[in-house]
Amino acid sequence: MTSERSSAIDFENWSCPVPLRDTPQVVMGHGGGGAMSAELVEHLFLPAYGSSVSPGDSAVVPLLGGRIAISTDSYVVKPMFFPGGSIGDLAVNGTINDLAMSGATPLYLSIAFILQEGTPLATVGRIASAVGAAAAAAGVSVVTGDTKVVDNGSGDGVYLNTAGVGVVPEGVTIEPARAAAGDVVIISGDIGVHGIAVMSVREGLEFETSVSSDTAALHSLVAAMLGAGADVHVLRDPTRGGVAASLNEIARSAKVGISLDEPSLPIPASVADACSLLGLDALQVANEGKLLAFVPAESAPLALEAMRGHPLGAGATVIGACVEEHPGMVVARTALGGTRVVNMPIGEQLPRIC
Amino acid sequence: MTSERSSAIDFENWSCPVPLRDTPQVVMGHGGGGAMSAELVEHLFLPAYGSSVSPGDSAVVPLLGGRIAISTDSYVVKPMFFPGGSIGDLAVNGTINDLAMSGATPLYLSIAFILQEGTPLATVGRIASAVGAAAAAAGVSVVTGDTKVVDNGSGDGVYLNTAGVGVVPEGVTIEPARAAAGDVVIISGDIGVHGIAVMSVREGLEFETSVSSDTAALHSLVAAMLGAGADVHVLRDPTRGGVAASLNEIARSAKVGISLDEPSLPIPASVADACSLLGLDALQVANEGKLLAFVPAESAPLALEAMRGHPLGAGATVIGACVEEHPGMVVARTALGGTRVVNMPIGEQLPRIC
Repeated sequence: MTSERSSAIDFENWSCPVPLRDTPQVVMGHGGGGAMSAELVEHLFLPAYGSSVSPGDSAVVPLLGGRIAISTDSYVVKPMFFPGGSIGDLAVNGTINDLAMSGATPLYLSIAFILQEGTPLATVGRIASAVGAAAAAAGVSVVTGDTKVVDNGSGDGVYLNTAGVGVVPEGVTIEPARAAAGDVVIISGDIGVHGIAVMSVREGLEFETSVSSDTAALHSLVAAMLGAGADVHVLRDPTRGGVAASLNEIARSAKVGISLDEPSLPIPASVADACSLLGLDALQVANEGKLLAFVPAESAPLALEAMRGHPLGAGATVIGACVEEHPGMVVARTALGGTRVVNMPIGEQLPRIC
Repeated sequence: MTSERSSAIDFENWSCPVPLRDTPQVVMGHGGGGAMSAELVEHLFLPAYGSSVSPGDSAVVPLLGGRIAISTDSYVVKPMFFPGGSIGDLAVNGTINDLAMSGATPLYLSIAFILQEGTPLATVGRIASAVGAAAAAAGVSVVTGDTKVVDNGSGDGVYLNTAGVGVVPEGVTIEPARAAAGDVVIISGDIGVHGIAVMSVREGLEFETSVSSDTAALHSLVAAMLGAGADVHVLRDPTRGGVAASLNEIARSAKVGISLDEPSLPIPASVADACSLLGLDALQVANEGKLLAFVPAESAPLALEAMRGHPLGAGATVIGACVEEHPGMVVARTALGGTRVVNMPIGEQLPRIC
């Protein structure tokens, strides 16, 4: 999905081409990873930037006779510390994961802080330490950074941005468009854990739960899968917008249908309970240490074995398959034998979750 | 300036090792590019991240048998549109310039938006168009991006982050530590223009001036200098903290003295007038389209000729030299034959200037 840079868009006298919106203003849903985010990218950013932008979470580009992957993400999670991690962990692991989902070996990270005036330096230090520890654990180098300070009232504690660079091994091409009818859909473990962990400590919502964020760097899990010789078509970490958004994006990109087996979805009771309490759909809740893998049926046993032999894939399980029917749509078969459409989330169930 | 990652810093029970500070909190000066910014990097970020972080504006790292430069910057300039440019121009040109200052050929950019809820989409579109236009003008590809939305009151319109990747040509090593006694210090043109342009439209300060920001991508100017065969030791774009901060950093890094010839400084009358009005030192005012070059005396004619033959270096002029005296210090010789120390700015003269 690329488009030529067009000088025809006159933003000075602009009648908001982003569809379905009542007001020509940014709303929280534009940051939710769902349909509104996609519209903003398609109708505003891509025409403005031109032909070269990758619509995915990382871009694979040629360099020095090889291929590298480049990725960036900002982090605005609130609160900054939550059960199982912090904004610093997310910033490192999230960007590593975006690179890993294109099959790249992550090597280098940049990290930029936007600090609100008045933030305790000890808080900045705790976050920076989390960044350093997560990078060291993942074997990735933080090589450059930046710091900006905004006046009190203009920020909200700490925002982070990480960008990452990795090398894509020769012969590896992992991208959404490769999903094909017959592919098996695997998830590496429990669904919805990160989102619920963050919500459980959010002001006004605090509730008792034993759920901790699953934030983790997944590149070694991917390496295990590729090392085992599995033919991996697509990888995706289902963060903002959850499994529902990721599967819908892949279905549309590859023009295949995706059929989910609802009873197979590994949703822990604690997540299911919290979702009931908050009125959420677990399929739309963010994960920060899980991946979805699309592999041809004949590669599935190999992929599953490799995943289950890795600590971050111990709970790997098949949750569905790609089908020729209903291209572009995700349909779940329920325990009672019925079907329901799993829609692309429109806006944002859980704002500022990452 | 690197340091091993230390687990000895306990930020949970932390007694703020950042020196010279009365309160253990973030203040605007930590974002000013001066002494306080440097202290934060040295005493907080480097120990937290470990040994691999480049203290400079870009990191040069090995990849695929060659060398690449990686850089990142966030942009929080206020207002977002100012005479001569916008936050979108700064985001592209600033990151290109950080790469170019290590001699790299910039190739790829990532761009991340943090949007405040309620920001008009037309504003986002104008900024994104400026990003696209600046990237196209510079021949650099925007390859990936990210969008986050923060609730009203938690942001301030639009913050941008760009990260960039470029290739460092074989044999090129341009870094602050290469400054050596005998080097001539050249600036590519007028000083202080960007900062004054932004201040002239800042709420509460508006004043009449004809000054427009000098925001520009400098990589083609650098290419012209290298193409002419000039032996370039150091390049630096004097942004936050201005010429004063850049020269002090280089003097400390290379342990050389820098002697400035004050009457040679190309400070336009309009900038000098505005600095008088606002009580600023033009040497501390940010530039966004200028570079400082350190070249051995024998290479100076070649470098100056190449710069003056390029539109962005037409005003190139020698402003000083590296000396063996006063290592680590910058001293200006005044028109009257006296001398004054040009200090590293402590905090921030002009907050949120980029």
